Amino acid sequence: MKSIYWGIDVGGTGIKLGAFLKDGSLLLKREVQTDLTDHGRRILPDISRIIRSMAEEQGWDWAQMAGAGIGIPGPVRRDGYVERCVNLGWMGFNPQKELSELLHIPVTAGNDANMAAMGEYWQGGGKGYRSLMLITLGTGVGAGIVLDGGHILYGAKGLGGEIGHTVICPEEPLRCTCGHYGCLDQMASATGIVRNAHRFLEKDARLSVLREIPEFSCRDVLDAAKDGDPVAEETVRYCLGFLGKSIAYASYIVDPEVFILGGGVSNAGKYMLNIVKDAYQANAQLADTFAEIRLARLGSEAGMIGCAGAAVVQNP
Amino acid sequence: MKSIYWGIDVGGTGIKLGAFLKDGSLLLKREVQTDLTDHGRRILPDISRIIRSMAEEQGWDWAQMAGAGIGIPGPVRRDGYVERCVNLGWMGFNPQKELSELLHIPVTAGNDANMAAMGEYWQGGGKGYRSLMLITLGTGVGAGIVLDGGHILYGAKGLGGEIGHTVICPEEPLRCTCGHYGCLDQMASATGIVRNAHRFLEKDARLSVLREIPEFSCRDVLDAAKDGDPVAEETVRYCLGFLGKSIAYASYIVDPEVFILGGGVSNAGKYMLNIVKDAYQANAQLADTFAEIRLARLGSEAGMIGCAGAAVVQNP
Repeated sequence: MKSIYWGIDVGGTGIKLGAFLKDGSLLLKREVQTDLTDHGRRILPDISRIIRSMAEEQGWDWAQMAGAGIGIPGPVRRDGYVERCVNLGWMGFNPQKELSELLHIPVTAGNDANMAAMGEYWQGGGKGYRSLMLITLGTGVGAGIVLDGGHILYGAKGLGGEIGHTVICPEEPLRCTCGHYGCLDQMASATGIVRNAHRFLEKDARLSVLREIPEFSCRDVLDAAKDGDPVAEETVRYCLGFLGKSIAYASYIVDPEVFILGGGVSNAGKYMLNIVKDAYQANAQLADTFAEIRLARLGSEAGMIGCAGAAVVQNP
Repeated sequence: MKSIYWGIDVGGTGIKLGAFLKDGSLLLKREVQTDLTDHGRRILPDISRIIRSMAEEQGWDWAQMAGAGIGIPGPVRRDGYVERCVNLGWMGFNPQKELSELLHIPVTAGNDANMAAMGEYWQGGGKGYRSLMLITLGTGVGAGIVLDGGHILYGAKGLGGEIGHTVICPEEPLRCTCGHYGCLDQMASATGIVRNAHRFLEKDARLSVLREIPEFSCRDVLDAAKDGDPVAEETVRYCLGFLGKSIAYASYIVDPEVFILGGGVSNAGKYMLNIVKDAYQANAQLADTFAEIRLARLGSEAGMIGCAGAAVVQNP
């Protein structure tokens, strides 16, 4: 009986692999380094070899393998084709097809943010909801959308959910890496929060614990804000205000049941959640149509778990 | 053989009914007034009676009826339930279920803007594309999204695609009917264009043909802009600039293959299309991910046609 699903989250530095049952229970997992040599051509053969040896160690018959999902740090088309994945060195090929040929099982490929959204939908903060949008606030702002029945919104060009580079603060004087000014990425990411804290500190001479931390991190800013530091608080409210606005936009376009917040910034928990909720509700129209906003639960394993979840949806 | 599909577009003043074949060809249509008496309770029995008599007149066997779609001017949940439809007087009932019981055929209900999007997808400006977002610029701004394979994006609360009340110009001093300031509806609708033209006229004393038209319409503004009237041109570029920005947001969230522009404002054709394209591209990130933008083709029949199209998708 085919009962084992593999989740494979490929990052620029490491690959997370896990074997799951259909109900989401994790049987075993492993983490290996990503071999980027030879334009990333060794990545898929490596994955195939590791998965086979993991299965062999457990004494699993290969006939039990129901499918696999693979997440990639870049845009993936619905048919699995990757035009370009800078982080892995890949250009114009189809990892879904190639990995399926290597493993002799069905494989479904997707963007890592979409796979993470699928993970939170299947086993995390969105479990029990019919549709969700996951927004991860880390170095940048990533996002993924899962619609009714576990369908990932890929988008025609693999941009589904990519709100990080929507211009949300046109008066921002600094240019974003994308070439525009005032992207959500510049404001609500961990990087954006640190950058804006420096700006608020330079504006006047107010006392702030941040002035005593030489190279403060986003976590320092969030901790200081929680403790009532006025500059840190102002920064966090300012930055997360733009996220609330973006969520309001997205709620009128995609209208998911719940928004899930993940990534490093979301470690500030209920404190940040309440700020985002307030900002969202101030920018949304009718109270009886407010979507829920909740915290992510799966941390850095959301992608791996979501890859297995996507495999379950493809091969139930 | 079941081969006839009905499209029923219910508006606050009239109901459009059409019988279609699976390939989209129209067999016959009729338009009747909407009877709003008794809280709109006569609407569905009226529709049932008219459809049966149309079929009878043609000598069609009822066994040929494959299904029907019904469009409603308000939010409809995926299961067909309507919580409230102010324009029809309906409160808390399921027209999909009731009409299906009256007609003894499968019925699918949807919001009229979503059904119009389905119409443009099936037989109009989006024919041949895999996914689209229709934006109609009339008295207000309406919108609907159709994803791969003809699936309407309903949204958890029936808000899918409803970009009209996203705040796109926060510095707008006038309050929108929804309670917020600077909604897209206030800027890019026909009403919004007329309102903004008055504002630009009051700003200074520049010559403009609009000053000679006592109660000018949106069409007057668009015609004057096309003829090079500076105030009209400034108005149109200003107002449609916000639409371009909204399209950029939506392209990063839903990423459809094509955006279709409909409604009265879109009658200005290529002139307005080019202005919107410029504004969209100025607010979007990478040229190789630009979505197409095209004009709607079905005019006020998009809804009726889309209802039949939705019935085809449901009962192929």
